[in-house]
Amino acid sequence: MKTIILKLALITAISFSTFANADDGKKYRWKLAETWGPNFPIFGDATKNMAAMVKKMSNGRLIIQIDSSNKHKSALGIFDFVKQGQYQMGHSASYYWKGKDFNTMFFTTMPFGMTAPEQYAWFYYGGGMELMKEVYDKYGIMSFPGGNTGNQMGGWFRKEINTVEDLKGLKMRIPGFAGEVLAKLGAKPTNIPSGELYTALERNTIDALEWVGPSLDLRMGFHKIAPFYYTGWHEPATELQFMVNEKAFKSLPEDLQNILTVAMKAAAYDMYAQSMHESGVNLAKLQDDYPNVKIRSFPKAVMSKIQAANAQLLSEFANKDPLTKKILHSIYDYQDQIRPWTNFSDRAYLDNFDSNSN
Amino acid sequence: MKTIILKLALITAISFSTFANADDGKKYRWKLAETWGPNFPIFGDATKNMAAMVKKMSNGRLIIQIDSSNKHKSALGIFDFVKQGQYQMGHSASYYWKGKDFNTMFFTTMPFGMTAPEQYAWFYYGGGMELMKEVYDKYGIMSFPGGNTGNQMGGWFRKEINTVEDLKGLKMRIPGFAGEVLAKLGAKPTNIPSGELYTALERNTIDALEWVGPSLDLRMGFHKIAPFYYTGWHEPATELQFMVNEKAFKSLPEDLQNILTVAMKAAAYDMYAQSMHESGVNLAKLQDDYPNVKIRSFPKAVMSKIQAANAQLLSEFANKDPLTKKILHSIYDYQDQIRPWTNFSDRAYLDNFDSNSN
Repeated sequence: MKTIILKLALITAISFSTFANADDGKKYRWKLAETWGPNFPIFGDATKNMAAMVKKMSNGRLIIQIDSSNKHKSALGIFDFVKQGQYQMGHSASYYWKGKDFNTMFFTTMPFGMTAPEQYAWFYYGGGMELMKEVYDKYGIMSFPGGNTGNQMGGWFRKEINTVEDLKGLKMRIPGFAGEVLAKLGAKPTNIPSGELYTALERNTIDALEWVGPSLDLRMGFHKIAPFYYTGWHEPATELQFMVNEKAFKSLPEDLQNILTVAMKAAAYDMYAQSMHESGVNLAKLQDDYPNVKIRSFPKAVMSKIQAANAQLLSEFANKDPLTKKILHSIYDYQDQIRPWTNFSDRAYLDNFDSNSN
Repeated sequence: MKTIILKLALITAISFSTFANADDGKKYRWKLAETWGPNFPIFGDATKNMAAMVKKMSNGRLIIQIDSSNKHKSALGIFDFVKQGQYQMGHSASYYWKGKDFNTMFFTTMPFGMTAPEQYAWFYYGGGMELMKEVYDKYGIMSFPGGNTGNQMGGWFRKEINTVEDLKGLKMRIPGFAGEVLAKLGAKPTNIPSGELYTALERNTIDALEWVGPSLDLRMGFHKIAPFYYTGWHEPATELQFMVNEKAFKSLPEDLQNILTVAMKAAAYDMYAQSMHESGVNLAKLQDDYPNVKIRSFPKAVMSKIQAANAQLLSEFANKDPLTKKILHSIYDYQDQIRPWTNFSDRAYLDNFDSNSN
């Protein structure tokens, strides 16, 4: 009997606190730091879209001010800003933090990894969100999908790649994991700030570079100096990231917590649709205005070598620590399970499609 | 001067009404009628997911009760329910209303039409939402994407299809537009209620049928009696539909209007991710438990004939009325623009992927 009364008391207390917490009449003014510069297309639209949804849905009770990199002066300081609570929120990409925690690297995209629809299925229905929480919890940061670019192109090359020998000594701007993969095949990967990329390619400081894809590459002008545009393998579904300081999140009334969570989710999905749109529009423009640009895939033999180098690197990673192993198993088991469906559905459909008869 | 004062007065009145309308302290109890039966997987999860998000985000100010078909007894009465305001909301599929208004047919999926990511780009960034509004406005109904099944399979066949001759006289359950396409090639399309499908196939009343895909087909048992499972062409990205009675929508305070709109959008995208997940899980199960089921694509020559019949039917449609023509042009111009991107991105990626080396 005592237990029952105690339980009832607890339930009442919880209900009351839920209610009291639900609409406190307060206005919350938050700040979000983003990696991107002001008015950066698509990526910057995702943060604006999210903040606008939150404002409207909360009737102005939660206002999120967006600081771009020109304001906070630290494009790659977002993780620390959010961890320390200097900013309640951030917008960036999880793989930028691999120097702080190696396991953050797996929540953006993986070379030869999942496509965007496969990866969203993994995040929300296949255990991805739970693993991301396991990685970020220790920093007091909540991490959420922040918008997908879709498949990124393999990059702009001044010379055609015909054999794996052509990769030897190739100076290419390709940061991170993908750069390590190419290094295994003798390439010389480097990282160069975006503002210097065009000149570096023009002056042969580099032979090739990867950026994003038609949605964002055209404004960079690479197509004017590098005639070969290769299809992608290294970032099949780059998912950006919203970060929220956990204490700040918990200080919000429950309804605002829900509004924020749903707005981040919808803005992320929206960015994937916008990326598709902009890629379609800009690829058409590229093909119309620059018919000499040649879109190529690496020959199968080259692709197989790259894929083998990637697999070797991954097995080295998996031995680093048990959580890395657990995450990699989750990703590749999921991919092995869902890829046959993608092949029998969208891939078969696209392969069977006869563009002459419609 | 008078004009200016009048304008200011109007602005004040509008601002005031916006404010007054923003949080009226009222609780709204709405009802949604769905085409599906109770606890229908995936489709029914989308409505529950949407209603749960609305409840939490609105702190209980908008509660949506869901009536399944066992309750309202009219699976295909949803359009009228919402139009007449008997229900404030519905969840169904736009192509079910082609008998009421032919132009509703184009907002679900099209044979040889767009994939799901392409179609979302069209809806939200390529003019699709505006065209859907143009079609539905006259009925006082607001229509929104309601969740995507992904690419639907071409169906279960008792015999293999090797030439277009094999389609002649083929009795197949395939409703709607796709059925008309196959009829042009001599097939005999029929529609049969879902509860009678298994028996009809077992007793040779029909030779073939299409349903959805692995995500929902397995529970129907077709794989036990039809050994050939064909890949899809007729519904590459079936998008369900949320409908809202426009007057009811306008009676909501603005913040609740926004909460409802964002919740519908997020629930629709979520259903696409869930469909991907369930398709992957169930296809793997099918292949493990029923290794004798053969997954096939129609031979290229057969597919080309089907595609040509489809193109002929579409050009007949386009001559029906100017709005039909406008919608079809929007869809096919958009598809022509975005498909090269899909081919150079996800399709090239999937085609280049070597499943032996990862």
